[in-house]
Amino acid sequence: MKLRVPAILSFVLILIFSAKIIGSEHSLMPVPKEIKWLEGKFRLTNEFSVSIKGSPNERIYSAATRMLRRLDARTGLFFNQDFITPANNLDSSEFIIYVLSEGRVVLGEDESYKLLIEENSINVHAPTDLGAMHAMETFLQLLQADEEGYYLPMVEINDEPRFQWRGLMMDVARHFMPVDVIKRNLDAMAAMKMNVFHWHLSEDQGFRIESKIFPQLHELCSDGQYFTQAQVKDILKYAEDRGIRVYPEFDIPGHATSWFVAFPELASATGPYKIERQWGIFDPTFDPTKEETYEFFDKFFGEMTELFPDEYFHIGGDENNGKQWDANEGIQEFMKAKGIEDNHQLQAYFNQRILKILTKYNKKMVGWDEILHDDMPTNIVIQSWRGKEAMIESAKKGYMTMLSNGYYIDLIQPASFHYLNDPLEDDTILTPEEQKRILGGEATSWAELVTYETVDSRIWPRTAAIAERFWSPKNVNNIDDMYRRLDRISFLLEEHGLLHIKNYEMMLRRLTDNNDIIYLKTLVDIVEPVKIYQRHFQGVKYYQHSPYTRIVDAARPESKTAMLFNKLIDEFLIDRSAQYRDKIISYLNLWENNHDKLTETTRLSPIISEIIPMSENLKELSRIGLEAIMLIRNNEKAPVKWKDKATGIIEAAKKPYGQVELRVTAGIEKLLRHVF
Amino acid sequence: MKLRVPAILSFVLILIFSAKIIGSEHSLMPVPKEIKWLEGKFRLTNEFSVSIKGSPNERIYSAATRMLRRLDARTGLFFNQDFITPANNLDSSEFIIYVLSEGRVVLGEDESYKLLIEENSINVHAPTDLGAMHAMETFLQLLQADEEGYYLPMVEINDEPRFQWRGLMMDVARHFMPVDVIKRNLDAMAAMKMNVFHWHLSEDQGFRIESKIFPQLHELCSDGQYFTQAQVKDILKYAEDRGIRVYPEFDIPGHATSWFVAFPELASATGPYKIERQWGIFDPTFDPTKEETYEFFDKFFGEMTELFPDEYFHIGGDENNGKQWDANEGIQEFMKAKGIEDNHQLQAYFNQRILKILTKYNKKMVGWDEILHDDMPTNIVIQSWRGKEAMIESAKKGYMTMLSNGYYIDLIQPASFHYLNDPLEDDTILTPEEQKRILGGEATSWAELVTYETVDSRIWPRTAAIAERFWSPKNVNNIDDMYRRLDRISFLLEEHGLLHIKNYEMMLRRLTDNNDIIYLKTLVDIVEPVKIYQRHFQGVKYYQHSPYTRIVDAARPESKTAMLFNKLIDEFLIDRSAQYRDKIISYLNLWENNHDKLTETTRLSPIISEIIPMSENLKELSRIGLEAIMLIRNNEKAPVKWKDKATGIIEAAKKPYGQVELRVTAGIEKLLRHVF
Repeated sequence: MKLRVPAILSFVLILIFSAKIIGSEHSLMPVPKEIKWLEGKFRLTNEFSVSIKGSPNERIYSAATRMLRRLDARTGLFFNQDFITPANNLDSSEFIIYVLSEGRVVLGEDESYKLLIEENSINVHAPTDLGAMHAMETFLQLLQADEEGYYLPMVEINDEPRFQWRGLMMDVARHFMPVDVIKRNLDAMAAMKMNVFHWHLSEDQGFRIESKIFPQLHELCSDGQYFTQAQVKDILKYAEDRGIRVYPEFDIPGHATSWFVAFPELASATGPYKIERQWGIFDPTFDPTKEETYEFFDKFFGEMTELFPDEYFHIGGDENNGKQWDANEGIQEFMKAKGIEDNHQLQAYFNQRILKILTKYNKKMVGWDEILHDDMPTNIVIQSWRGKEAMIESAKKGYMTMLSNGYYIDLIQPASFHYLNDPLEDDTILTPEEQKRILGGEATSWAELVTYETVDSRIWPRTAAIAERFWSPKNVNNIDDMYRRLDRISFLLEEHGLLHIKNYEMMLRRLTDNNDIIYLKTLVDIVEPVKIYQRHFQGVKYYQHSPYTRIVDAARPESKTAMLFNKLIDEFLIDRSAQYRDKIISYLNLWENNHDKLTETTRLSPIISEIIPMSENLKELSRIGLEAIMLIRNNEKAPVKWKDKATGIIEAAKKPYGQVELRVTAGIEKLLRHVF
Repeated sequence: MKLRVPAILSFVLILIFSAKIIGSEHSLMPVPKEIKWLEGKFRLTNEFSVSIKGSPNERIYSAATRMLRRLDARTGLFFNQDFITPANNLDSSEFIIYVLSEGRVVLGEDESYKLLIEENSINVHAPTDLGAMHAMETFLQLLQADEEGYYLPMVEINDEPRFQWRGLMMDVARHFMPVDVIKRNLDAMAAMKMNVFHWHLSEDQGFRIESKIFPQLHELCSDGQYFTQAQVKDILKYAEDRGIRVYPEFDIPGHATSWFVAFPELASATGPYKIERQWGIFDPTFDPTKEETYEFFDKFFGEMTELFPDEYFHIGGDENNGKQWDANEGIQEFMKAKGIEDNHQLQAYFNQRILKILTKYNKKMVGWDEILHDDMPTNIVIQSWRGKEAMIESAKKGYMTMLSNGYYIDLIQPASFHYLNDPLEDDTILTPEEQKRILGGEATSWAELVTYETVDSRIWPRTAAIAERFWSPKNVNNIDDMYRRLDRISFLLEEHGLLHIKNYEMMLRRLTDNNDIIYLKTLVDIVEPVKIYQRHFQGVKYYQHSPYTRIVDAARPESKTAMLFNKLIDEFLIDRSAQYRDKIISYLNLWENNHDKLTETTRLSPIISEIIPMSENLKELSRIGLEAIMLIRNNEKAPVKWKDKATGIIEAAKKPYGQVELRVTAGIEKLLRHVF
């Protein structure tokens, strides 16, 4: 019997099916709030043009121009418009951007937009140009091609962010990050709809900004590596043009050794002081009992608050170990006299004095969770890093707060770990009112172990997953789909000059002294730097001036190859089909054969020698993996002796070398355990 | 009969032989004036340290620090010294730099040095820190490794440059080049011992520097892309720290359309004017008959000469087509009244007035060879670009001069072409006195067809060969050896952040939309952009805002693979050994099989479609090449029909597509002609 399907039903089915296909093919990141795929394509030709309507801020014109240039760079199309300006703005065009009013780059500004792509026209409607710029980023991510040429799929998107504070913090103090590094990361942030740049400008290891009031600060505390005020203004403009708020952090009272090179008298122990070259937590800390300290900050913050227009101003406050305070008689007496019971309370006293200064200059204080104290007023913002407890406690107590715990990208954890870390869990104990105080969060790029050569790869692409966590609806949390899209996003991010992909092979070339990198790459493709803080505890003491050009520095935080391999193992252990098995065998053969070739071609690269034992372990591991597959294939169990040998090999393969670890060990171990 | 070789003779033979081995293994560029290889090695360990003695300029300390960081980056060694400063300068160390006196970064300063590497110590002796910095670059190029670790070969080097003026000109006007682009190119120049940066700051297409006296210039004539004076000073300091002179060019009276957007009244025809977006020679030119013109330049050059400390100041003067002058009645009357017979003389009048201004500000005028005129005094410097005739004529007439003809790197000619172009030919007609007036030369990076993404690959590594021509003795001119060393130098140059290697694959990724680049790379590896000015005459009209991201922009100026292949052909045709033949067959197979895979994997990259016919031609060409090899192998001559087919295929293969051309056609053609 032939089933007669009503025409309309067929049509609907086709629609749903097509939408599903297009929908699942999309590589948008962050995923928009509402997407309605339509049927059809908007074809891109040389005649493509853009016009602006409404009352936008002038930044929209250069943003539209940048969009056009990124589009022609990818497509090779020769558009007519050179620089889109108010003066040459077209009356009509294929792509029309309607902006209701000027966007202010401040917390809470409307960043929503509607993007409608139809067959002959594209329209953006946004209350502010900030939303319009987000629309342009979504638009660029939609670009596709078929045999006829480039096109955009027809779609209707309604989008707005879940959280208002979607930030990246860059520590430019432990290792200086020049202007071009900051700018390309701002471009990448904008592409990911991130809107807050937290500029961590001072540390024990360096003071990174020009002060005209206290020039000794940049003259004596920076090794000549700092941002001039002209450069700061240039970067502020660059960020503002991209809808990104910028606020500075001057981490006090601890984490401040470098300042005391210029002003030892403000420390809590006698100097002189030298710029700190090691990593860790150090004793030097500001003396909170001296009026000179507050006179200094009044002047210095008077200058800095003038330079940075954002309403928020971060004063750090983390990891102040209080040792200098404990050992300082004058401070002890002060505490006794004032009834201050402990260092936490003394630091709260300090923070209150600083808060008065910031308030005088119309700034709102932000600090790490150590600044949370009942003596502090609730108009400060708490950056929760040691856990989520501080964030929850802050929200409950009436403080605004944002989350960095779980977004510490310097700890080399997978994108999925950060992706699933949500500022507002489903089972939150917070009331709706309290929940509103969770502003969002910040990924933190601490710079002990990165330099301008490697920082991009430690931030991207994983921070894109965090950006999605901050923007997209809570229920957008499918890990596999995130990784699928992350892969493409990582590629697209190169457009901004990021070095996260390019520098990998450059560093491998340097490591092999320009010999064929293939064998080293085969190994380094499947290792990752050891996680959390382990790198500091494996026999290598790192200093600020140490080289960060070894294999561990070239290795990517997340090995895509290892992830794919481990997935293959999982699939294979469920369904023993030949397709998985053959791919696995292919990898294992590759890795087994790699060792001899690697050692042969890198005899004259001593810098690589530290990895050779791992290469050997990988060879053994691969061999034993291949043997396990044979056993599985033959439906055999492993002999005891083999089991012992395999166990020894697995354990050896888990050992880190050069502060990297093999990431395929877990997968191969599963294979082995399967035949144990 | 056993030959008794005297011990001493054996020793000498060993020395000569070893020297030859080490000597021919060196990859120094530019080759030092005198090298005496010694026996033995200086071994590099974590204890390596550097100290400075004598009376150097302070720049030597940061230069020594940079050297240390480059050394640890390559070796992974952890040295003790962080930032070498006068305050922490060691009393003794393994590497001691003796500098007699402060170097002044001016034309003619002593840049000589002696470098002595012995088993336990390294010494540099230099009259100035400029020479000492050159020594450090040579030192870094000597780094090698053996199974024991890193070392420097023992050697004694005495070195000084052949020419005093060893420059790179960067056109930052036609396409703006941001600060970081300039800085990394300055680092590369210093590595190649180049010492002059000629900053071409204005063109029809843009005015690239902030003027506080006439802010309309950067406000209206730059599209917002220009160097602030703060950035200029930063770059000047950066260059000076590296011993590089910087002098600006303001190209007048022609090549000046952009200025007239702000000051139409100074042009020779009524405005208004728009920034020029096309490439070529344009009519707008300054009016040399108005006093307002000279009042303008008096003020503007008053400002610019204050900003740029170098004694030299370039005023362009090239390609002034005179059309606006011819059509301007007032100008014609002026000429009649003054007895000025032609435009060349009128321009000389203009130049004399400008010269007076520059002289007032204590600057020496430099200009393109068009400014050469009997009415001009001999204290100007002529930059010879249209040929060598101007240089020779200038020298004969008493002018200082330097050569750019033959160093126009934007014309995509091979390194060997530039390498063999000598400012002072053996058969020169110049007397020794006249020869002294040839100061050196400049490689010119014109920016019509490059952007910040591609400029590095258009400058490097070929400019390193030019740097050697300017520095090394005249008889250092072996092309094969130059290419051997150039290959390594190209790799080493990545250390400065240059994108000449890294951006190749990035651009291929973008072209394939992140699909496997291997097949596209196989093709693009053996093509080069069409040469000289052909690119503008093959059906694509380029504008300033056109994309420069196509295959032609990714393709390197000089295909190493093609060069190797063509060499293989030459070797094979002399000596039909299997080793050459098999390699050739290997390439031809690769190329023949590439087409189908390329078309399959790039179906959805329309931007690549323009190259597909060439890919097909390569397939045909490779097939016919393989057939030719079979004929050669079988000692057969080609049948007539085959000959006709082959001829057709060769001709087709010579056709450019997307403004690139295959570079293996010549070699394969030789194969074919061999059996014709």
